[in-house]
Amino acid sequence: MKRKLTLKLIAKELDVSISTVSKALRDSAEISEDTRQKIKAFAKLYNYKPNNIALSLKNRKTRTIGIIIPQIVHHFFTTVIRGVEQMAREHNYNVIICLSNNDFEKEVMNMELLANGSTDGFILSLAKETMQKNDFHHLTEAIDQGMPVVQFDRVVDGIPSDKVLVDDREGAKMGVTHLLKTGCRKIAIITTEDYVTVGKLRTKGYIEALESYDIRVDKDLILKLDNIDSCDDQCIAKIKHFLKGKDIDGVFTINELFAVEASKALHTNGKSIPADVSIVCFSDGDLSKYATPSLTTVSQHGEQMGRRAAELLINKLEGPEVEVEEYTTSYINTSLIERESTRKVK
Amino acid sequence: MKRKLTLKLIAKELDVSISTVSKALRDSAEISEDTRQKIKAFAKLYNYKPNNIALSLKNRKTRTIGIIIPQIVHHFFTTVIRGVEQMAREHNYNVIICLSNNDFEKEVMNMELLANGSTDGFILSLAKETMQKNDFHHLTEAIDQGMPVVQFDRVVDGIPSDKVLVDDREGAKMGVTHLLKTGCRKIAIITTEDYVTVGKLRTKGYIEALESYDIRVDKDLILKLDNIDSCDDQCIAKIKHFLKGKDIDGVFTINELFAVEASKALHTNGKSIPADVSIVCFSDGDLSKYATPSLTTVSQHGEQMGRRAAELLINKLEGPEVEVEEYTTSYINTSLIERESTRKVK
Repeated sequence: MKRKLTLKLIAKELDVSISTVSKALRDSAEISEDTRQKIKAFAKLYNYKPNNIALSLKNRKTRTIGIIIPQIVHHFFTTVIRGVEQMAREHNYNVIICLSNNDFEKEVMNMELLANGSTDGFILSLAKETMQKNDFHHLTEAIDQGMPVVQFDRVVDGIPSDKVLVDDREGAKMGVTHLLKTGCRKIAIITTEDYVTVGKLRTKGYIEALESYDIRVDKDLILKLDNIDSCDDQCIAKIKHFLKGKDIDGVFTINELFAVEASKALHTNGKSIPADVSIVCFSDGDLSKYATPSLTTVSQHGEQMGRRAAELLINKLEGPEVEVEEYTTSYINTSLIERESTRKVK
Repeated sequence: MKRKLTLKLIAKELDVSISTVSKALRDSAEISEDTRQKIKAFAKLYNYKPNNIALSLKNRKTRTIGIIIPQIVHHFFTTVIRGVEQMAREHNYNVIICLSNNDFEKEVMNMELLANGSTDGFILSLAKETMQKNDFHHLTEAIDQGMPVVQFDRVVDGIPSDKVLVDDREGAKMGVTHLLKTGCRKIAIITTEDYVTVGKLRTKGYIEALESYDIRVDKDLILKLDNIDSCDDQCIAKIKHFLKGKDIDGVFTINELFAVEASKALHTNGKSIPADVSIVCFSDGDLSKYATPSLTTVSQHGEQMGRRAAELLINKLEGPEVEVEEYTTSYINTSLIERESTRKVK
C-alpha cells in the first residue's frame, strides 16, 4: 500500500518532532537553517503538499464541522457536543469528532486529518499537553490557510479565533461566596496547576471571594493537582492526604471528580456533610447529581456553550468575505445549582 | 456557494426519504419504477456520484477508522471509544467519531459522510430508530462498495460484517442468578422493548435464570420501556408506578440509569437496599460506582470490546484479498462486580 506522506511520517523518517516539521515547512525562524533545508528537501522529494488545506477550501465546501476535544469520558464535553450537534443540524451541517486524549501530537494530527478536505472549520478545546508545551502553531497554521477556528473552555489567547467561555473567575467566586454565605469561613480549594487556564482562573475567583469577606488566603488550604480529566489512585491519595486532619468547614473544587473524592475522604475522616464541612464544585454532570450527598455545583451550561460555538463558526463560514476579520469572545453565564452538600443560606 | 449534491439534498428536493433515494439509485425493486426513474434522472442531471466510495478506496488509504454510535452521554460508548482509540494508535490509525443520536437519517448521513473518502472502514452500533425501522440498506451499500464494517453491541444479523458482542443472555443470567443465590425469589426486571436486541436478549437471560430455579415467570414483574439511553420524566414515572406496592425482593435492570431510578423509587417507598430489595444492573459505569448504595453490575468491558472491534477492522483492512470473505463474531466475557446493592452469598 502506498502511504500518504503526512507530517507524522516525515517526523518519524527524519527523527524530529511533528512540531519541528510543521514549523520548518512554513520557514519558522525557530528551526535551524540546516534542519529546515533537510525537511523541505525531504517533503519536496516525496511530493508532500502542505497547502492541501487551502486547495480543498477553494474547491468545495463540505458542510461539516470538526470538533477536537481532550476526551469524552468527561460529562462536560459530551454536553458541549450535544449543543454543537443541535445547532449544526438546524443549519444543515454534519459534525465529526476527534479526541486528542490530552496529547499534543494527537491534537496536531487530528487537525491535519480534519483540515485535509473533510471539514470547513473547527471547534476546539486544547489538550492538556498543548497548554503545557505552550505550542499552538497548528492552530495558527489552520487559521492562516483559511480554516476558521472557534476555541472553547480550554483556550489560548493571542490566536485569531472566536472563543466561547464561561467566566471561570466569576463562576468560582459565586460558588465560594455561596459557601461564605452559609457560614463557612475556613474554605479549602482543590484545583489544577496554573498552566490549565480554567484552573488558574477558578483559583483566582476563590481568592477574590475570600478577600471580599476579608478572609486571609491560607496557602495550606490550596491543593494544586496535575490531573484535569481524571483522578487516579495517586490523585485520590493526594486529596486524602490534603484533607486529613485539616481544620476546615468548606471545600471548593474545580471539577466533579475532585469533589466526589473529597466527599468520600471527609466521610472516612468522620466528617458530616454539610454539617461539618460543606462542598461546592464546578461543572454540572451526572456525578454531582447522583452522588450522596448530591453536590452543589456551579453549572457551566455545556449545551449552550456548544450551541454558541457552532453558531459563531457557521457565521464565519457563511458570512461575506471581509477586509478586516473580527473575533468574538462569548461568555456563557454560570449558575449555582443548590443540592445537599451545602447548608441553606440564613 | 455551490452545494455538493448529497442523498439528503436529493431527498429534500424530490420530497422523498433518504432511504428511498438511496434504494432508487441502486435500482431496488422496493421502489416504484416511476420514482426510480425520477430520482435517477435528477441525480444524473446534477452529476451525483454514487460510486465515490469505491473510487476513493481504489485511489488511496486514509488510515482512518470511522466510529458511528448512537450517542456519547452513555458511559459504555465512551469506554468502547477508548478501546478503539488505543488499538488504532498501536497500529498507526486515526479515529473519527460521528453520532447518530439514535436517528436513522442521521446514521445514513454519517455513513455517507465518512465513506466519502475520509475513512477506510467503520465500527458501528445501530441507532434505536434503525432497529425500529429494520432498514439496513446503508450498511449493505457500504459493504458492497468495499468498506468493511464491524458491528458492536447493537447489531443486526444477516449483514456480512464482523461483530463484537457480549453474551447478553448469559450476562443477564449471571446477574439474576446472583440475586437468586443471595436468597431473592421475587425478582422484577426493568428492560426495553424487544426491538432493541440487547434488551430482548437480557430479558431472555432473566427468564432462563428464574426457570433454572423453578420459579414461574410473572409478567407483572416485567417492565418494558421504550427508552434506551436516557430516562426522562415519563420514564421515571413509569418506573415509580411499576415498583409502587410491588411485593418483590430483587430488581434486575438492563442499564445503570434504570437501576439508579429504581433505587431512588424503592428508597422513597421506604424499602431498604439490599435488606428488603436487592438490585443488579447491566453495564459498568460511573453511576453504578458512585451511586449510594453503589450498585452491583454485570460489567460489559467496553474498552475490551472497542479494542477487539478495531483489531477485527484493521485485520480486514490489512489482510490479503480473498476469494471467500469470512466473518467473525467475537464474544467478550462479562463479569459480575459486587457492590453494596446486593447481599452476600451465603
